[in-house]
Amino acid sequence: MVNKEAADRTNGRGYLRIATEEAFAPASLLQTYLKLANEPGCDDPGFKSLWGFYAASPSARAQFIMNGLADLGAQRLAHMDAAGIDHQIIALTSPGVQVFDAPTGTSLAIEANDILADAVRAHPDRYTGMVAVAPQDPASAVKEMERGVRKLGFKAVILNGHTRGEYHDDPKFWPLFEAAEALDTPIYLHPNAPPKQMIEPFLEAGLDGAVYGFGVDTGLHMLRIICAGVFDRFPKLQFIIGHAGEALPFWLYRLDYMHAATLKSNRYPFMKQLAHPISHYLRNNIYITNSGVAWQPAIEFCQKIIGPERVMYAMDYPYQYVLDEVRLCDEMTIPSEHKKQFFQTNAERVFKLAL
Amino acid sequence: MVNKEAADRTNGRGYLRIATEEAFAPASLLQTYLKLANEPGCDDPGFKSLWGFYAASPSARAQFIMNGLADLGAQRLAHMDAAGIDHQIIALTSPGVQVFDAPTGTSLAIEANDILADAVRAHPDRYTGMVAVAPQDPASAVKEMERGVRKLGFKAVILNGHTRGEYHDDPKFWPLFEAAEALDTPIYLHPNAPPKQMIEPFLEAGLDGAVYGFGVDTGLHMLRIICAGVFDRFPKLQFIIGHAGEALPFWLYRLDYMHAATLKSNRYPFMKQLAHPISHYLRNNIYITNSGVAWQPAIEFCQKIIGPERVMYAMDYPYQYVLDEVRLCDEMTIPSEHKKQFFQTNAERVFKLAL
Repeated sequence: MVNKEAADRTNGRGYLRIATEEAFAPASLLQTYLKLANEPGCDDPGFKSLWGFYAASPSARAQFIMNGLADLGAQRLAHMDAAGIDHQIIALTSPGVQVFDAPTGTSLAIEANDILADAVRAHPDRYTGMVAVAPQDPASAVKEMERGVRKLGFKAVILNGHTRGEYHDDPKFWPLFEAAEALDTPIYLHPNAPPKQMIEPFLEAGLDGAVYGFGVDTGLHMLRIICAGVFDRFPKLQFIIGHAGEALPFWLYRLDYMHAATLKSNRYPFMKQLAHPISHYLRNNIYITNSGVAWQPAIEFCQKIIGPERVMYAMDYPYQYVLDEVRLCDEMTIPSEHKKQFFQTNAERVFKLAL
Repeated sequence: MVNKEAADRTNGRGYLRIATEEAFAPASLLQTYLKLANEPGCDDPGFKSLWGFYAASPSARAQFIMNGLADLGAQRLAHMDAAGIDHQIIALTSPGVQVFDAPTGTSLAIEANDILADAVRAHPDRYTGMVAVAPQDPASAVKEMERGVRKLGFKAVILNGHTRGEYHDDPKFWPLFEAAEALDTPIYLHPNAPPKQMIEPFLEAGLDGAVYGFGVDTGLHMLRIICAGVFDRFPKLQFIIGHAGEALPFWLYRLDYMHAATLKSNRYPFMKQLAHPISHYLRNNIYITNSGVAWQPAIEFCQKIIGPERVMYAMDYPYQYVLDEVRLCDEMTIPSEHKKQFFQTNAERVFKLAL
């Protein structure tokens, strides 16, 4: 009977579809973004480009995204049903509360987590939450991680790129990594626009966003965390990165070769000898989702290089709500066991789901 | 008899090995680099990081590179023989003359091209040259391209990343593209360190060089040229990019999706509607080499996505002189006709070689 019921739930596909990088934002926070983006003193050009546009544009794409982010009820569920998504892993959208001063960020994170927790309680079979934090105040961020995991039942932590221009390889942020390892909770490193120290050549060509800037900045951020020795210090810590691993699996050979060559040459006195080559951390401390990349060649490449047990499905709702992309992923010509890992069982294991 | 001779020349492999992204630099230019990198007024942190290190370091890697760059004679030929490289396509190393003021750059380009031309004349069966130019003075650069191709017999033009902080999508550089198309000569877009507007988050982690910064900056540069409409204006123009296409083939799905979505949303008033999706230009205007990436998964991915007729072998001598990497490429389990295209016939066609 159990097997028959399970088969029915998947409509004969043999797997549930769990989408692992889905976004929300309280409507009030989106208005706060717009206000901040328009303040003359705001010196985060990536934030201004991103939220100065989305929170104000009348374009159909911007309106769909704004409505989709704010809704955790009937509309989202209807969209999931229409697309055949059984379950969403939901995080506060980028840049989360990481653009605000520390007290504001801390209090807005609590507020956002409470709103998401209400929605998860109302629809536990459809939603799982990630904890938003304000790394600006690492001690409070650790407290909120603990509350999110232990009290609210969230199953991951979301970090949206840099925090006010700082990357999280800085040792002052390592208490977050220590806590995540202790809580046995993965950290999703989601893109943000590149920080002001980097964005100009992207921005002046309109390439700062999801088209390219997001990816290379998130790749850089992940590499900084690896090269700082975070995983040598916290070997059980697990990160998740989207967009087919932000191309790091494709760069793997060159990363290993040139990291070793650079170390050997003593070019950077501060560069650390790691316990393993970079590829080791990609294969042992990092999960990958295909958010935004409904494309078998890249998905299959990640499965081959990193391992099918580390590659998960994501839609990137509401930023990329394309029903046909679900079909493209369903129709991938990969072994059926890899497809079930991709759509369902990896996510069940990583996020400790009981669906 | 012709077939037997050809077979003998390849030692029964069935293909010659033509390495297409190999570097040289006059010893005097390397000293000029060091002098410039140490000038207090030099405000190019990437250049200071790169040549302030290589031109002065006693490390074995730096010394090997310095000696290898300056030699166009017996040592280089012996290294080619030891590695089994039949022919090198040689370019002035990065950043070429693109860091100097316009008159200095123009005169140093002529000097470097004359030195390379002498070596090519001495060893026409082993060397082919690329033309170095100073885009700081576009009109003189066009003249030097014409001299390089028509008088010196060079078969490509080398552009080493940004020119004094400027990317070459700026219309003031388009005369170079017009000339390259008219001369039917490909442009090799080779990495340089990211410009000062972008490099800081890379540099402070030691990730500005070949390990990551080179690749993402060259990818950005190529995308800027595509998105500016250069290939719509010069549809026959051909570029070459190394390092397995600087990961652009891996990003292909997302580039197409998000470029179209960004245009549709009117986020950037200056963003141009192109005649084709970005993937079209990757498949019709860009050749790829595997410099630095002696790794079948990435090479095969490029062949599958861009086409085996557009993927060529490169060693990246003297930066990555690893004999075992030649073996790795020889032993790739890909169709033998793709391997011959990769090592020999694509390069013969692209560089108009008669070996």
